[in-house]
Amino acid sequence: MRILIIGATGTLGRAVTALFADHHEVLRAGRSSGELKVDAKDPASVQAMFEQAGPLDAVVMTAGGVHVGPLGEMTPTQVQLGLGDKLMGQVNVVLAGQRYLRDGGSFTLTSGIVAQQPIRQGVAMMTTNRAIEGFVQSAAFELPRGQRINVVSPSVLTESWEGYGPYFAGFEPVPAARAALAYQRSVEGVENGQIYRVW
Amino acid sequence: MRILIIGATGTLGRAVTALFADHHEVLRAGRSSGELKVDAKDPASVQAMFEQAGPLDAVVMTAGGVHVGPLGEMTPTQVQLGLGDKLMGQVNVVLAGQRYLRDGGSFTLTSGIVAQQPIRQGVAMMTTNRAIEGFVQSAAFELPRGQRINVVSPSVLTESWEGYGPYFAGFEPVPAARAALAYQRSVEGVENGQIYRVW
Repeated sequence: MRILIIGATGTLGRAVTALFADHHEVLRAGRSSGELKVDAKDPASVQAMFEQAGPLDAVVMTAGGVHVGPLGEMTPTQVQLGLGDKLMGQVNVVLAGQRYLRDGGSFTLTSGIVAQQPIRQGVAMMTTNRAIEGFVQSAAFELPRGQRINVVSPSVLTESWEGYGPYFAGFEPVPAARAALAYQRSVEGVENGQIYRVW
Repeated sequence: MRILIIGATGTLGRAVTALFADHHEVLRAGRSSGELKVDAKDPASVQAMFEQAGPLDAVVMTAGGVHVGPLGEMTPTQVQLGLGDKLMGQVNVVLAGQRYLRDGGSFTLTSGIVAQQPIRQGVAMMTTNRAIEGFVQSAAFELPRGQRINVVSPSVLTESWEGYGPYFAGFEPVPAARAALAYQRSVEGVENGQIYRVW
């Protein structure tokens, strides 16, 4: 397959790229690195990426930031950060990509354990991740030409534990290589509208 | 109790107002009618509303629009409409209101059946409603001074069936007066972080 990975140089993106690279053709996209440059927040940039990418069998998204901080100090702008970046970045890719992806191709998005399991200071994170899962579960019914869409919801990554561990007291981290398997299930499997929880 | 109802002149807002008005003091807020004028999309307008409202025991939100339309033609701007209006309108009210609401007071937000039950052309609706529920279920752990927050998820209203019925083939509509009871449970009850499904 010809697979586009957006966010390929992040912790998760590198693991997904490594898993796919030995038996697929992988195109890497990112803000500042990879074969294709893209700012997923910007629909025009997403459009240009697809024009450059050529035919694709799968698109994997592992990019997107969200604000973490206490509700008592949270501003509307901080909530909108995750909605604009992690949510709309992925939405922009699907809205444009449905016209470029081959028949039967797949989108695999990324949410996160905080979609279901709350953490302190995680209000913007749960809001954003839950929206992503809602988008996927509804879009699954409307994609054209047999295209599929799923979302991977990983726990905090072992490789990110040093930075994020304090927010995830008592959570079990998962290695990025294990989370990457869920992307493989989505891309090479048959399901549509699924949430793959890697917890 | 002293209860602020935002969106009080809508179909649902009128039913909630009618239910509360006989045994509570009700303040009505809306874009163009009610004792208080507010554009919930605008944080400054929300702030001004709370400054004018005085002490409050409960805030109920029954306002907010979302785009309905096929995924194949959907634009990022159309997805952002519901995020900016129905989601951020309610988020703005909670972020500002937590500083004004009395100890032990409650917020009651509104999502909708399409948070869980997909309909054709409902991608933006599921995205937005799911985000609202995520916000509520996470904010419930961080509100100050014993404040509570819940969300009511009504099915399509009997009173709105003429306009929305075609999108909800086979769904059972519910009378606004029945949906209003869920707001009463939230305001006068004890629960926190609950989704009241009126289906």
